Amino acid sequence: MSLKLYDLAGAESERRFSPYCWRAKLALAHKGLATETIPWRFTDKDVIAFSEQGRVPVLVDGDRVVSDSWAIAIYLEETYSDRPSLFGGPAVKTVTRFVNSWADSIVAPEISRLVLIDIYAHLHEKDRAYFRETREKRFGMKLEAASADRDTRVLAFRQSLEPMRITLGAQPFLGGDAPTYADYSVFGCFQWSRCISDFRLLAPDDPIAAWRDRLLGAFSGLARNAPGYPP
Amino acid sequence: MSLKLYDLAGAESERRFSPYCWRAKLALAHKGLATETIPWRFTDKDVIAFSEQGRVPVLVDGDRVVSDSWAIAIYLEETYSDRPSLFGGPAVKTVTRFVNSWADSIVAPEISRLVLIDIYAHLHEKDRAYFRETREKRFGMKLEAASADRDTRVLAFRQSLEPMRITLGAQPFLGGDAPTYADYSVFGCFQWSRCISDFRLLAPDDPIAAWRDRLLGAFSGLARNAPGYPP
Repeated sequence: MSLKLYDLAGAESERRFSPYCWRAKLALAHKGLATETIPWRFTDKDVIAFSEQGRVPVLVDGDRVVSDSWAIAIYLEETYSDRPSLFGGPAVKTVTRFVNSWADSIVAPEISRLVLIDIYAHLHEKDRAYFRETREKRFGMKLEAASADRDTRVLAFRQSLEPMRITLGAQPFLGGDAPTYADYSVFGCFQWSRCISDFRLLAPDDPIAAWRDRLLGAFSGLARNAPGYPP
Repeated sequence: MSLKLYDLAGAESERRFSPYCWRAKLALAHKGLATETIPWRFTDKDVIAFSEQGRVPVLVDGDRVVSDSWAIAIYLEETYSDRPSLFGGPAVKTVTRFVNSWADSIVAPEISRLVLIDIYAHLHEKDRAYFRETREKRFGMKLEAASADRDTRVLAFRQSLEPMRITLGAQPFLGGDAPTYADYSVFGCFQWSRCISDFRLLAPDDPIAAWRDRLLGAFSGLARNAPGYPP
């Protein structure tokens, strides 16, 4: 097996919670590429110094090194073009970038805030000071304060997902009849939360919850079988 | 010319401001289909009774009648498949539906609120009571109150456009190198505002303003030449 992915882990090395690493793992599964995942913590900057940056996912494919989840998706699509298309075809990539950007700028920041204290609780001890310092700077408040009003904040979060709800009223996946990278880019954010928190992001009767369930079962339950909480 | 489009008009019959009609007009232009547009007002329900619903756009193509902007786009793509693809290819339609849903549920409702009082000011006299009643019911307040705090509300609106801003940092159009229906679905909302309001939705240095300008110039300035205000 020549493919290796550096994958964010918590205190337990099998708790892999990064939304961006989940995107990469689902993209690799979509391409049918067996990959060795290597547990990595926020403060292991030296371990991935070869990638010339400090964050995961980092994919190593023989002598190629690719970091950033979007760049990894593009790399896999181009390099393994004989395998099932991640985007559903060459022309779909550009519009998928919008969905990915929506997940990055709307979905991920809000989920981050809602479950911040739960992420902290699952970190390896060596990562805790780093995480507290960087996230408290980002949010301008204590971790505990950022998640304190989550029972009310989650209502606005659910409202912000309306574009997905409308889309899923007409088709089972954002990509259409089958999941594509558009789905993985958003699902990674939900899986992130599920791996470290029992906080309920979605009402049980939300059509987005049914979509999430379909993706939890994809690739023989790759996401469902990962250590985490019931969604 | 066999194509006809019923198109929402203001007091002046040449002021055509509906975001959904703009989507249809740009889709028709993309397909290179000359179309007669027929000015229509909110209260002209009888005039489009043949479409078995009460809203525009309504496209009449020979003996075919299609209402709803998304249905019109799908109809044009399928019927005029030998002309330039509206979506950029068959597989792109499903992901474009997400962009269209985002425009419908996030962009349009907020622009509606920001310029509500300006829409009212440009309506035909016969539409004013209908518009005031339906919109005051929708927003739960007087038209004047809904737009009163727009100088502060617009800041949150601009923030909500971040997914577009990220996408346009990597490519000139949501559709990629050239505009597609993904662009028209969002641009229709901006053109709506421009036709009836001088309220500044975007900061001049916003990359989304440059994108809007490119679309104002598309199809020999179809949108730019329409009666309205400087964007």
